[in-house]
Parts: sequence; C-alpha cells; structure tokens
Amino acid sequence: MPGNIITIGRQFGSGGRSIAKHLAERLGIKYYDKELITMSAKESGISPEIFEKVDEAAANSLLYSMVIGMYGATSRMTDYSELSINDKIFKIQTEIIKKLADEGPCVIVGRCADYILRERTDLLNVFIYSDTEKRIERAVNEYGIQSKNIKEFILKSDKKRSNYYNFYTGKRWGASCNYHLCLDSGVFGIDGSVEIIEKALNCIK
Amino acid sequence: MPGNIITIGRQFGSGGRSIAKHLAERLGIKYYDKELITMSAKESGISPEIFEKVDEAAANSLLYSMVIGMYGATSRMTDYSELSINDKIFKIQTEIIKKLADEGPCVIVGRCADYILRERTDLLNVFIYSDTEKRIERAVNEYGIQSKNIKEFILKSDKKRSNYYNFYTGKRWGASCNYHLCLDSGVFGIDGSVEIIEKALNCIK
Repeated sequence: MPGNIITIGRQFGSGGRSIAKHLAERLGIKYYDKELITMSAKESGISPEIFEKVDEAAANSLLYSMVIGMYGATSRMTDYSELSINDKIFKIQTEIIKKLADEGPCVIVGRCADYILRERTDLLNVFIYSDTEKRIERAVNEYGIQSKNIKEFILKSDKKRSNYYNFYTGKRWGASCNYHLCLDSGVFGIDGSVEIIEKALNCIK
Repeated sequence: MPGNIITIGRQFGSGGRSIAKHLAERLGIKYYDKELITMSAKESGISPEIFEKVDEAAANSLLYSMVIGMYGATSRMTDYSELSINDKIFKIQTEIIKKLADEGPCVIVGRCADYILRERTDLLNVFIYSDTEKRIERAVNEYGIQSKNIKEFILKSDKKRSNYYNFYTGKRWGASCNYHLCLDSGVFGIDGSVEIIEKALNCIK
C-alpha cells in the first residue's frame, strides 16, 4: 500500500525528527533514526562513535585514512573492505534500511532512505524545513545547543546533509520534485505537520 | 490571517491551475491566472496577444525589439517606457497582484506572486509538481495538446517558468524552501491536493 513506508528528509533544527517520531506513534508503526546508526554499527563491527562521526557525511579523506586501516576487514555482512569508511557505512545502512522496510510499515529519518528504497511502490517521501530564525530558536530551546555561531552551525549541518544526499543519490537535497510532500514546519508546527502528513497519507490515490 | 492569500507555483501539466481553481471554489474566494494577463493588458494598453507571448517569459531581446517601439509609451499606469517589454509586463503584473491581494482573500497562480507579496504575513505559498509521465498524460488528455515531442514541450515550458521565476526573484523555482507546502499531484490527484492544502490552511500556527 502506498504510504506503508514514510521517509523523512529534514533541515537541521526543523523538527523533522520529532515530526517523524510523533507520526510513527500516531500510526502505531516503527520509527528509525539514530537507531539506524546503532544497528549499523553492531552489524559492521565499526565502533558507534566512528559511525556517528561519518553518519550522513560525504567522503572525508582524513577521517577515512584514520580509520580505514583499523576497520578494513571487520564487516560481518557483505565484504566492503575495499571501500572508504563513508561508502562502507552507506552500503551497510542501505542493506539495513532495505531490510527494515521489508519487515513492515515504518518511518525512516534521513540517510537517503527515499533514494535507497526508490524501487518500492509503497513510499511516501517527505521533506521538512523551516526558516533559519525558527531553526535557531529550536536548536537552542529544544536541542539545548549553546554556541555563539549557532547560525553557522546550522548551515554547516545542512551543508553536510546536503553533500551526503547529493553525493550518494545524484539528486538535489530539498528540491521539491524529489519528495511527494514538502512542509515548512515553522508555519505548521510539529503537531500541524504530523496532521498534514496523516492527511496526505489518506489522500494517496 | 495567515493563508488569506494562497499563491500556487506549478510545473507544466501538474494540474496546478485546476487545483487552484477547485481550492478557490471550495474556500469561496477569488481565483486569478490568465485573468491576470487580461487585466494587465487592459491596464497597460499592450495587446493581450503580445502580453500572453511574454507572460512568464524572461527577457527575450528579439520580441522586445519587435514591440518596444510600438508600445513604448502607452502605459496608463506608472511610466515604464524605459523598460524592456518583459520587465514592463512584470512591473505591471506586480502592481496588479499587489492590488488584488489588498482587495481580499484569493488564490493566485504563478507569476512570482509568492515573491511579489513577500512582505505580507498572510500568505500560504504552495508549489505543485508531478513526474513527467503523469504530466504528459495530463497534457494530452486534459489540455488536448497534440505533439510528437510532447515531453520536450513540457520541459521547455518548465524551463521558461523556471527562468522567469529565477530571473525576477533571484531564488530557485521549485526549491522547497521557497514555499510553505509542496505537493506531488501525481500521487495525490487534483482532489487530494486540494484537500491537503485545505488541511494545511487549518494547521497554520
């Protein structure tokens, strides 16, 4: 059924993760975000700390050179020992995301899930964003981030996600045509965004 | 009230105009699309045929040189005689769009209305798109367009709209962050898209 699997891309500080979590609760289905990292790390044998550092980051040769030797041959899944640490993590996450989607209805946040699952016909791909001011507010009040250059931090986080998405999908992160529904959470709020996505699920032809 | 004025940008063949029309009917408010052209033409003294040719087209020096002499001093509004025909039409449409928005709730299709009205706090900016196959189907069945190169025709129409929007706004047409809500009408259909926009209107914080 279309809408069985909901993928949510999001700008940093847009509340995309909260929206995804609330939506999954409302629909009574699974939710995957950081959990993906932990699962991927367990499967690969790469430490969760290293995994988190390169999660959603496009190729970084310094980090790569630091860890590739250490973890080159530890994967318990397909043998990715010839790949960079980033590509390796992308491949492992790809396998896990496909496996999770096969297991049943769920909401998956970020990590190019829309692209990884593009062959499926039961997706609803959503993108969540908001203006920078509202995201700064959220980063401070909700995430407790304290930084003098918080705007720069937010824009850098977006740049990282954008590079990761564009690099692995060959498409443009946040371009409306890559998603079925795009929402400004600054205008609709967390609850409103959840309601609109639920409505959209009921409107799929 | 936010959502008083709804602007709808749309890919060619996405059904954006039908969605706008149905939405306006459901909300009992005014709807402006081609009407804008007629009104603009009347105000300017430029013939509706010329107006339609340059409507939503970025600067075209050949057309400009053909008509600028003929219509250079006929505007009954602000004196735009020093501008190219395209810029002149954009300026006239800007005035008309602002006037219409001041008159009361309405739905305005295309013509950079989201940008022209950006100072207002009562906007809901929507973008409608769909995959090319579905747009070809719509162009043939709904608009009765008969062309061997219909795909090329559609992509050219989009390119024209995109150039116009990017040229006059300095932003990227169809980038989700320029709108409050973006919808794939191929997934939700005309009626579904109208319902989602109505829901979104009720969810504005």
